[in-house]
Amino acid sequence: MVTKNEIKFINSLKKKKFRDLNNSFVVEGKKSISEFINSNYDVIKLYSIDKSFFKNIENHFQIDFKLLKKISSLINPDDHLAIFKKRETKSLDYNSLIIALESIRDPGNLGTIIRTCEWFGVKQIVCSKDSVDLYNPKVVQASMGSSSRININYLDLKPFLQASKLQTFGTALKGESIYGLKSKINSGILIFGNEANGISKELLEIIDKKFSIPRPKNQLFPESLNLASSLAIFLSEIKGKFS
Amino acid sequence: MVTKNEIKFINSLKKKKFRDLNNSFVVEGKKSISEFINSNYDVIKLYSIDKSFFKNIENHFQIDFKLLKKISSLINPDDHLAIFKKRETKSLDYNSLIIALESIRDPGNLGTIIRTCEWFGVKQIVCSKDSVDLYNPKVVQASMGSSSRININYLDLKPFLQASKLQTFGTALKGESIYGLKSKINSGILIFGNEANGISKELLEIIDKKFSIPRPKNQLFPESLNLASSLAIFLSEIKGKFS
Repeated sequence: MVTKNEIKFINSLKKKKFRDLNNSFVVEGKKSISEFINSNYDVIKLYSIDKSFFKNIENHFQIDFKLLKKISSLINPDDHLAIFKKRETKSLDYNSLIIALESIRDPGNLGTIIRTCEWFGVKQIVCSKDSVDLYNPKVVQASMGSSSRININYLDLKPFLQASKLQTFGTALKGESIYGLKSKINSGILIFGNEANGISKELLEIIDKKFSIPRPKNQLFPESLNLASSLAIFLSEIKGKFS
Repeated sequence: MVTKNEIKFINSLKKKKFRDLNNSFVVEGKKSISEFINSNYDVIKLYSIDKSFFKNIENHFQIDFKLLKKISSLINPDDHLAIFKKRETKSLDYNSLIIALESIRDPGNLGTIIRTCEWFGVKQIVCSKDSVDLYNPKVVQASMGSSSRININYLDLKPFLQASKLQTFGTALKGESIYGLKSKINSGILIFGNEANGISKELLEIIDKKFSIPRPKNQLFPESLNLASSLAIFLSEIKGKFS
């Protein structure tokens, strides 16, 4: 039996305030839930239309589709919904590439970026504190399980960059063409700016080197590429094509 | 004065059925609306918080933010909302590259793909008939105005591909590495499959050549890249890096 209060509690986890307060977050769908379990996240509760999956999980409850609809963030709910305990982030490994995101707003973008980073073997992301929360249901969904394995920290980017001693690379509309790169970038910090405004002036000033995806000749529109698509092209050029 | 029926009508346009029935669709935000106007789409009605913009538009109504909230699809509405008349698609130009999308479901993906295509100078997209509607508000929003300039047709992909006589390129998890390409692809049809299932068996059988983004060594996860990110990398490799 799932009480009204429980339904209210699960729905409250759509908001960051309540995820922080309760130290927990929601994951939906068999595949994503499996990946968080495989990454040793603690399941607090699991709700399923079909209990023949996830047999070893305690606190596993059978629910009907009508109830699932009431607690899901998805238009087409995906048979299973789990509440997991949040986890402490690990400390950063300064010997491998770090992706830094400044004021990223769109949860679909962040989720896609996490998935793309993992594909290209980048395991560390730092976000400015005003960025969208990694436990936002849309971030979790778009990351397709990758957010269970990628280390994501929220911090003040400027002091972090100033203190890091690593080489910093900025992505900007004007900069050295990314297509000219002759070898892999294995370490340092690669910074991407906000969807609408790019990297702030404040950060641009302290970045060592700027790269860009050159605009093809005679193309006036659009003004820019989508942030996650742009990051995919960058990682493809600095990692993918060399592996 | 905006009547209750008018509010109901505008909201009905969130559904494809009513967009088709009324041959019209909604665009939000100053930038996107400007681009549809510049592309000579007919404005049926325009609603603004601030009427000092779009001064030459007839049927332009001042509304307050409370009303805008009631008719907007956005969480943070963007001061202007316009209803435009849908337009006939143009016939295809077989001398330049065509992107074909099979059963694409996510409106954010389609919008991002339209934007990315335009960035790389690809002006034609064909979608299978079961794909998400290009006039879906989330598609329009994610395309950032590009959908006003790109020619998008909905058709049965199999007979289209069979009849086309053009070279067909499929994107699959297994195929020739896209990084090995020595020259630009200027014509033909480049096919991308559905987000979850890729290109169907039926279409794979009739495709001339398969390309893939090779999975970096030792990377087991994620299973695949996001569709729009994957398309961005493909267009970067077959267009961007040569221009």
